Amino acid sequence: MTKRLPRVYLAGPEVFFPESVRASLDERKKRILGDVGLEGVSPFDNALDLAGAREPAQLIYDANRELMDKADGLIANLTPFRGPSADAGTIYELGYMIGRDKPTVGFSVCATPYNERVSRHSTVCANGADIEAFGLADNLMLDYGLVRAGGKFFTGATAYPPGGFPPEAYFEEPVFVAAARYLAQLLREHP
Amino acid sequence: MTKRLPRVYLAGPEVFFPESVRASLDERKKRILGDVGLEGVSPFDNALDLAGAREPAQLIYDANRELMDKADGLIANLTPFRGPSADAGTIYELGYMIGRDKPTVGFSVCATPYNERVSRHSTVCANGADIEAFGLADNLMLDYGLVRAGGKFFTGATAYPPGGFPPEAYFEEPVFVAAARYLAQLLREHP
Repeated sequence: MTKRLPRVYLAGPEVFFPESVRASLDERKKRILGDVGLEGVSPFDNALDLAGAREPAQLIYDANRELMDKADGLIANLTPFRGPSADAGTIYELGYMIGRDKPTVGFSVCATPYNERVSRHSTVCANGADIEAFGLADNLMLDYGLVRAGGKFFTGATAYPPGGFPPEAYFEEPVFVAAARYLAQLLREHP
Repeated sequence: MTKRLPRVYLAGPEVFFPESVRASLDERKKRILGDVGLEGVSPFDNALDLAGAREPAQLIYDANRELMDKADGLIANLTPFRGPSADAGTIYELGYMIGRDKPTVGFSVCATPYNERVSRHSTVCANGADIEAFGLADNLMLDYGLVRAGGKFFTGATAYPPGGFPPEAYFEEPVFVAAARYLAQLLREHP
């Protein structure tokens, strides 16, 4: 009898990237997860008939939700997307999986802390809201949500480009490998 | 014997606003929640000694998490903050509470759909990622996360200002009242 590998949901803004970039990132991640004894599943594993759907957005949500519910853990690409924080859908999935008590890790290629991404020279943003100078990778709910659930937020070596990262930049192999190894360990401890 | 009112966690970026604005918004929301038979609790109800804390960010996370775990439901201000999507911490809390199967509603004062906030004239953003033209209030995981959990995303009347909303604009009474009434009904059905 063969036991199935622990299944890990690959969350991230890659779903919005041009197909060639997305497919190659998915493949590299799944290979690395395989190397540490995990099976990666991605939203694109679902071949959804969006053109024929009456509510395509609901179809996508339901499919992602089912993938998450069938997964044993989560690895979330929290690299900043369309602003100083991670992709909104990915953050939702991070909160959801932690709410479900499933082992979870996050990573970002970005070396610049959140508060410096919002403003390098002030503790108040352009609209007058406080920027908490904690030097964390993102909003503290993400950083400590991960830590307090036994997970970890792995960060990379790239400085934040003022206009945001281009799609090809959303992957750094050493960061992903470290996150994958950590998650594999978590899943061994909490099978 | 008096039964306690259902307790609702008030999530939103208001925690970063100047104290005078924040306190007044908290008070108005708690009054409206009281009118529909709910008790509002806000992160600022915790008087935390941040100055004396070794890890102030963790202290804030733990206090918010405890408030969420003691709450019966969530009302999340998902008005765009520091970019085209809602505040990262608020999205995390939304996902977490839905992950915990707790009744949840969201609201935003913004009338402009997410895809138009990212770009009015294109289906691809400046960095080359797709902008799904669903006309939803935010990333579909938030909109349908709410809907599929039995909740709802209430939106307001204000067009998205290119530089984002100022703190005083994060509240529209009719939108909050509608969200509060809907949540009160949900909590009666799922006590």
